[in-house]
Amino acid sequence: MKINHKRKVRKTALPPGTLIFTGEQKMDQVEIHLIDYDSDSIHEKELKDIEKAFPFKDLPTVTWVNVNGLHDVTLIEKLGKYYTIHPLILEDILSVNQRPKMEDSGNILFIVLKMLRYQESTESVESEQVSLILGKNFLFTFQEKPGDVFEPVRDRLRQHKGRIRTLGPDYLAYALIDAIVDNYFLVLEKMGDRIEALEERLVQNPTDDILQTLHRLKREMIYLRKSVWPLRELLSGLERSESSLIQQSTGVYLRDVYDHTIQIIDTIESYRDIISGMLDTYLSSVSNKMNEVMKVLTIISTIFIPLTFIAGIYGMNFVYMPELSWKWSYPLVWLLMIGVGSIMVVFFRKKKWL
Amino acid sequence: MKINHKRKVRKTALPPGTLIFTGEQKMDQVEIHLIDYDSDSIHEKELKDIEKAFPFKDLPTVTWVNVNGLHDVTLIEKLGKYYTIHPLILEDILSVNQRPKMEDSGNILFIVLKMLRYQESTESVESEQVSLILGKNFLFTFQEKPGDVFEPVRDRLRQHKGRIRTLGPDYLAYALIDAIVDNYFLVLEKMGDRIEALEERLVQNPTDDILQTLHRLKREMIYLRKSVWPLRELLSGLERSESSLIQQSTGVYLRDVYDHTIQIIDTIESYRDIISGMLDTYLSSVSNKMNEVMKVLTIISTIFIPLTFIAGIYGMNFVYMPELSWKWSYPLVWLLMIGVGSIMVVFFRKKKWL
Amino acid sequence: MKINHKRKVRKTALPPGTLIFTGEQKMDQVEIHLIDYDSDSIHEKELKDIEKAFPFKDLPTVTWVNVNGLHDVTLIEKLGKYYTIHPLILEDILSVNQRPKMEDSGNILFIVLKMLRYQESTESVESEQVSLILGKNFLFTFQEKPGDVFEPVRDRLRQHKGRIRTLGPDYLAYALIDAIVDNYFLVLEKMGDRIEALEERLVQNPTDDILQTLHRLKREMIYLRKSVWPLRELLSGLERSESSLIQQSTGVYLRDVYDHTIQIIDTIESYRDIISGMLDTYLSSVSNKMNEVMKVLTIISTIFIPLTFIAGIYGMNFVYMPELSWKWSYPLVWLLMIGVGSIMVVFFRKKKWL
Amino acid sequence: MKINHKRKVRKTALPPGTLIFTGEQKMDQVEIHLIDYDSDSIHEKELKDIEKAFPFKDLPTVTWVNVNGLHDVTLIEKLGKYYTIHPLILEDILSVNQRPKMEDSGNILFIVLKMLRYQESTESVESEQVSLILGKNFLFTFQEKPGDVFEPVRDRLRQHKGRIRTLGPDYLAYALIDAIVDNYFLVLEKMGDRIEALEERLVQNPTDDILQTLHRLKREMIYLRKSVWPLRELLSGLERSESSLIQQSTGVYLRDVYDHTIQIIDTIESYRDIISGMLDTYLSSVSNKMNEVMKVLTIISTIFIPLTFIAGIYGMNFVYMPELSWKWSYPLVWLLMIGVGSIMVVFFRKKKWL
Amino acid sequence: MKINHKRKVRKTALPPGTLIFTGEQKMDQVEIHLIDYDSDSIHEKELKDIEKAFPFKDLPTVTWVNVNGLHDVTLIEKLGKYYTIHPLILEDILSVNQRPKMEDSGNILFIVLKMLRYQESTESVESEQVSLILGKNFLFTFQEKPGDVFEPVRDRLRQHKGRIRTLGPDYLAYALIDAIVDNYFLVLEKMGDRIEALEERLVQNPTDDILQTLHRLKREMIYLRKSVWPLRELLSGLERSESSLIQQSTGVYLRDVYDHTIQIIDTIESYRDIISGMLDTYLSSVSNKMNEVMKVLTIISTIFIPLTFIAGIYGMNFVYMPELSWKWSYPLVWLLMIGVGSIMVVFFRKKKWL
Repeated sequence: MKINHKRKVRKTALPPGTLIFTGEQKMDQVEIHLIDYDSDSIHEKELKDIEKAFPFKDLPTVTWVNVNGLHDVTLIEKLGKYYTIHPLILEDILSVNQRPKMEDSGNILFIVLKMLRYQESTESVESEQVSLILGKNFLFTFQEKPGDVFEPVRDRLRQHKGRIRTLGPDYLAYALIDAIVDNYFLVLEKMGDRIEALEERLVQNPTDDILQTLHRLKREMIYLRKSVWPLRELLSGLERSESSLIQQSTGVYLRDVYDHTIQIIDTIESYRDIISGMLDTYLSSVSNKMNEVMKVLTIISTIFIPLTFIAGIYGMNFVYMPELSWKWSYPLVWLLMIGVGSIMVVFFRKKKWL
Repeated sequence: MKINHKRKVRKTALPPGTLIFTGEQKMDQVEIHLIDYDSDSIHEKELKDIEKAFPFKDLPTVTWVNVNGLHDVTLIEKLGKYYTIHPLILEDILSVNQRPKMEDSGNILFIVLKMLRYQESTESVESEQVSLILGKNFLFTFQEKPGDVFEPVRDRLRQHKGRIRTLGPDYLAYALIDAIVDNYFLVLEKMGDRIEALEERLVQNPTDDILQTLHRLKREMIYLRKSVWPLRELLSGLERSESSLIQQSTGVYLRDVYDHTIQIIDTIESYRDIISGMLDTYLSSVSNKMNEVMKVLTIISTIFIPLTFIAGIYGMNFVYMPELSWKWSYPLVWLLMIGVGSIMVVFFRKKKWL
Repeated sequence: MKINHKRKVRKTALPPGTLIFTGEQKMDQVEIHLIDYDSDSIHEKELKDIEKAFPFKDLPTVTWVNVNGLHDVTLIEKLGKYYTIHPLILEDILSVNQRPKMEDSGNILFIVLKMLRYQESTESVESEQVSLILGKNFLFTFQEKPGDVFEPVRDRLRQHKGRIRTLGPDYLAYALIDAIVDNYFLVLEKMGDRIEALEERLVQNPTDDILQTLHRLKREMIYLRKSVWPLRELLSGLERSESSLIQQSTGVYLRDVYDHTIQIIDTIESYRDIISGMLDTYLSSVSNKMNEVMKVLTIISTIFIPLTFIAGIYGMNFVYMPELSWKWSYPLVWLLMIGVGSIMVVFFRKKKWL
Repeated sequence: MKINHKRKVRKTALPPGTLIFTGEQKMDQVEIHLIDYDSDSIHEKELKDIEKAFPFKDLPTVTWVNVNGLHDVTLIEKLGKYYTIHPLILEDILSVNQRPKMEDSGNILFIVLKMLRYQESTESVESEQVSLILGKNFLFTFQEKPGDVFEPVRDRLRQHKGRIRTLGPDYLAYALIDAIVDNYFLVLEKMGDRIEALEERLVQNPTDDILQTLHRLKREMIYLRKSVWPLRELLSGLERSESSLIQQSTGVYLRDVYDHTIQIIDTIESYRDIISGMLDTYLSSVSNKMNEVMKVLTIISTIFIPLTFIAGIYGMNFVYMPELSWKWSYPLVWLLMIGVGSIMVVFFRKKKWL
Repeated sequence: MKINHKRKVRKTALPPGTLIFTGEQKMDQVEIHLIDYDSDSIHEKELKDIEKAFPFKDLPTVTWVNVNGLHDVTLIEKLGKYYTIHPLILEDILSVNQRPKMEDSGNILFIVLKMLRYQESTESVESEQVSLILGKNFLFTFQEKPGDVFEPVRDRLRQHKGRIRTLGPDYLAYALIDAIVDNYFLVLEKMGDRIEALEERLVQNPTDDILQTLHRLKREMIYLRKSVWPLRELLSGLERSESSLIQQSTGVYLRDVYDHTIQIIDTIESYRDIISGMLDTYLSSVSNKMNEVMKVLTIISTIFIPLTFIAGIYGMNFVYMPELSWKWSYPLVWLLMIGVGSIMVVFFRKKKWL
């Protein structure tokens, strides 16, 4: 989950609205999937060519065209021309580091947001840009690569579940956004699990790699926050939008997703607080452990240094040292040393240093 | 008081408005309690079936139906159908991790908030979601499990205390919210007691578990804050609401609860500041204690090392060491060692290190 | 200056507007003091009974009734009934942990704020709740106990100083608020003196109790801030209020007190910054002092350990140790040891460790 | 640059609008300087008596009266009476700890702000309160003591430089405020120089007095900020003011000073960030230095302790110690000790501890 | 990237609108470059004299005059007179420490912003002030020195690429601002690379110069932030501006640059968070490394001190020490010492201290 700052670089010298794909190509062939439905019927097919989708423009049915893969610039160009989409919007679709935003250009609504998925294998969050173009009776969606969180929505369409088939493309757009936002909860749940797992290890054995993981988690939280905050604005903008493309009945659903994003933001803020607290705990327990080590070691030294001094005394070679020739002085010195040692141990114990 | 991030997970693939209880089932049987009253009479009964409550809809009296337990989805569905409540609101009642909020859908007002109770046994705060549906002459309340803070309100209804029986369901809703908010003060009082108790222990004997407790308290404060901040918005929204369901005379009471939530927020912020200060004090007193230990130990070492050196000198086996055969050299060396030791003790004392 | 979180506890189960004194009773007998004045005359007396004040209601003169002691609930009740004051306001008067606020209920203006006094003996700030009820030609003030900062205002009334006698009860209310706010400056001055005194001790001798005092000061600042911030809102609310009870000519005076509260807030923020800086300085000077101790002690050890090693060498009992029998080896070893010691001292000095 | 909290103390018991000078008297005799000009002529004189300025009130020329010294209360009183200025404004002129603010009382505009000057001798910033009273064709300025930053403005007036003589007193007021704000840049430049000088010393030799200076700088920054933030509000208030005293053509100039204050605020914030960074660097380099000391010292001890142990072995007096009588054992022990010492040095070097 | 606080100093005593170049002269001769174009033709030439540009004022074509070098005050003066530009704006062009801002003076729009370039050689960011004056059919740009990021725009003009030649000077202004903002991404990319490089070194070998670099990066981030934040306001101001100089069709492009600045701000904030995290990691790994050193060293001491004590015992010269004359006592003492040493090593290992 690196912050990709390479976005604009390759096209810096070009006029605005120039279509160049700025991401990393993640698939060979662009896949175009079309679903055309009304409350009575549903057609679904894979298109070889974007032109195949154009005849649906004038049908009264709702048409959803999903495009996987953004490297085919001419496809986007043709689409833009046929549906009269502003070049800057086309450019935004191809620039894969957009901040979530919504743009209303009268005939269409353009929405761009981030689809997040938790990658079990690498224990990291994967981000993919999803753009939506909502028209009078069509919805285009653009993804960077195959695989998405929209399958349940497709199933509801196919099985005529809920009211989705009876409502317009704005409700479909809502359903897709809702699927994406619902998936954020899943990602947060995984994050929460990792935080909890870390927390236990933190108390038991604070190691260096915990610190690394904590910092990585913190950074992922910053990234998540960056994705969700503008999403909130986007949704409240959609809800209050006066565009004729959004039916009034969809407003209450948008408000519902909006509430979910606020819940997500709340959770992210909580996690940030918790991670900060864990960083403090880590530092304090590392330092506690170190202090404990130093204390025990120093105590051992401190006990033996005076004893060594006593031994040193009777190692002196003075001719006139009466004690040396006394019969009981050796055992007495032992007693003395044991006494001094014991007193120190008692003293340390009393001071609660041991 | 864990942050439950499991909320949406089980229903991720379902259309919005699908009714699925997302919490943990905390009771076997749903309990339905009905109180029907006007200023003259009051009826109270346990219902087996939610349909039993429906005839009250058209009576001029105020009807309060309290539902304990949210796992009976069909009950909620029937209710929704009979009283024409939007499915998204029904979904919110069943999703037990709602952020406190208010929704005005014309014929009813939907309010969801958190009831907090301090659990003496576990020294923790327990949170339960309470939803209110306020209609023209009825009020529905939904709780996750039996046991609540509404008993005093029920007593006031039964004993015709205050003006509660003469006023509409909006005043009843206010009374219940007030009871919940009043209970926050109790929770805060318990928290305050724990903070004070900790504070004394902190100064006397900073141990590792104090740190743990401080961090737990801090986290509970974060949770409390998360519950109360949106409550404030909710109440100011209710007060300024133009809904015909809220009588004008209730406005002044809502303002009163609103003031209480502000007081609660103030107290929470104060506690947070105090806990932060205690964390600082903890760290500083741990480090002070450690430093004291190290200082005393190092001083002992420092005194004996030079003395041991002196002893070492006269332990050397040189043939030509005139001092060795002098008569008074042994006592003189003793004097020297006592002198050096005393000078060092004096020096340390003067420097205030001892 | 503890945060009293006990406020609502005793009355949790009661209907709103129930009058119960929630504070600590600080005096035996409620004292009622009445001043009735216009620009020509002034009457002043102690009342035994609140009813004695009622006849003044219909006189054109301005009547100021000050009540010391809040435990006599019936007094407040009678007052409320006679002057038709909303029960929630009466309840607020008796709840001694109100946040400063203003409430306009048409016929009267209710103001509650904190009177702070610096207690020289305990070096602490004492807080007392003062409530004002401003009517067409009367002003009621309620205090928890005798003793206040209003004496100068009373003197100005008695001596016809300034314009106070010629203006209405709103100006009197302003004068009392101004007296309270002016006293905040006194409290801050005392705080400032303590901070300065601490600062000097901090540099000279950082002891543990300085840390305690700093944290206490910090907490008092938090409390002060909590008292003054809402006061600012209160005053700006009063100034912009469209109540007919506030004469337009009083506006400029209210603006003046408002400016004072902003100055107070500024000073509090400065003090908070200063105290934070002092906490940093404290920690850094404690650690500096400790480091200095450790350094000197370690240096002593370090010098003597190599010397002791040299002495140990010549304490070995090998038969073939030619140095042992050389004539000058003993003085040479002394020279060696002095040399090694000196080199180390020079080295330490050069590295600026000594 | 102490925060003077003594402001209100001396007059706490007095009615508002009572004129008492609350500052420290900094000069013997009040100086009154009058400049009267229009585009054709200019008159300049020192006045003995404020009454001498009164006849200018009704002339069409612009009259600028500058008063140095605020201890002559009667002067202010006379002025207030003749020009009908509200007593609270007069009081504000005499209270030398005003927060920068603007007040529009219809016939006059009152402006109070801080004139800052860098005192080369004490390396500190000196603050002086300047009040402006702007009327239809006059401007009064009040300073605490002689010496100001207005000389260039006076020169421009005398030499008819720029458009200043052709414009009204509002432009003159602007010119004075501009001169004060320009001087803030000078003060900040000096601060910047000190910060830079400190920075170099910080890296080379972090001493205790650097910490003191850093904290003093930080506090001065807090003070500066406190002076400039309200100034910004003041200027934006002036610019948007609908007072007839501000000509529309002056608006663009006020906007220019406003921009300067924002630049100053930006610089102050940058400096605060830099100073915070320096504090961190200080702490880290102090601790690094200490750590380095401890490491070298400990290494020396660690090398010699095992060697001393070896010497101790052969200092034992056992009768049956075959090594003692071997011929080469003494040189072999030397080799052993040199070997052990070298291994440890190599080990430490390899671990990069040396 | 120093904060140049020298801005106003040289002109402190001068009337506003006095034209004095406050920067450092970076070139000998002012260069004036003119491009005059419409959709059919384009003329480009170097001018010796600014007067040569004046005849273009009344042509219908778009004229772009770029001025490199700001030290020729008379040039600016002539321009100001001929195009009637307010002196304060001319002053702002010459004051090279302007905060990015926009000013609308009716006949022209004045825009000032910062052009940032990454200097590969010094690894630092270089800042240059660029001012734009946008008129009905002309655009003036002012730079401090030759070299800019506008070459791609010039190429698009020359090669009639995109729609730039068919649109007015407002689109040209947009194109230049876009080029500047695009370059910010390049600068951020370089910063990102440095941060990543640092991060790797940080984990492997935390040295003192990393701390220095981190603080320098942090300060550069502060500077960048200071440049971009006001740019955001500027652009949103331009977009919402009602000036007739901005065509409505340009609005969508301005919105696009605006989005880019928000992305830049987001990235800057992320980098700041990352740098803060790295500072924490640095401190913690320095302290970890130190602790490890101390631990190993202390362990070595601790093992040998008791052993030395044992050796000391049998170095005592008592006459009656039976062990001394036992045959196996020497090897037994060795065994004892090896035993004690081993027990301590095992103990340390078990406690995970080794």
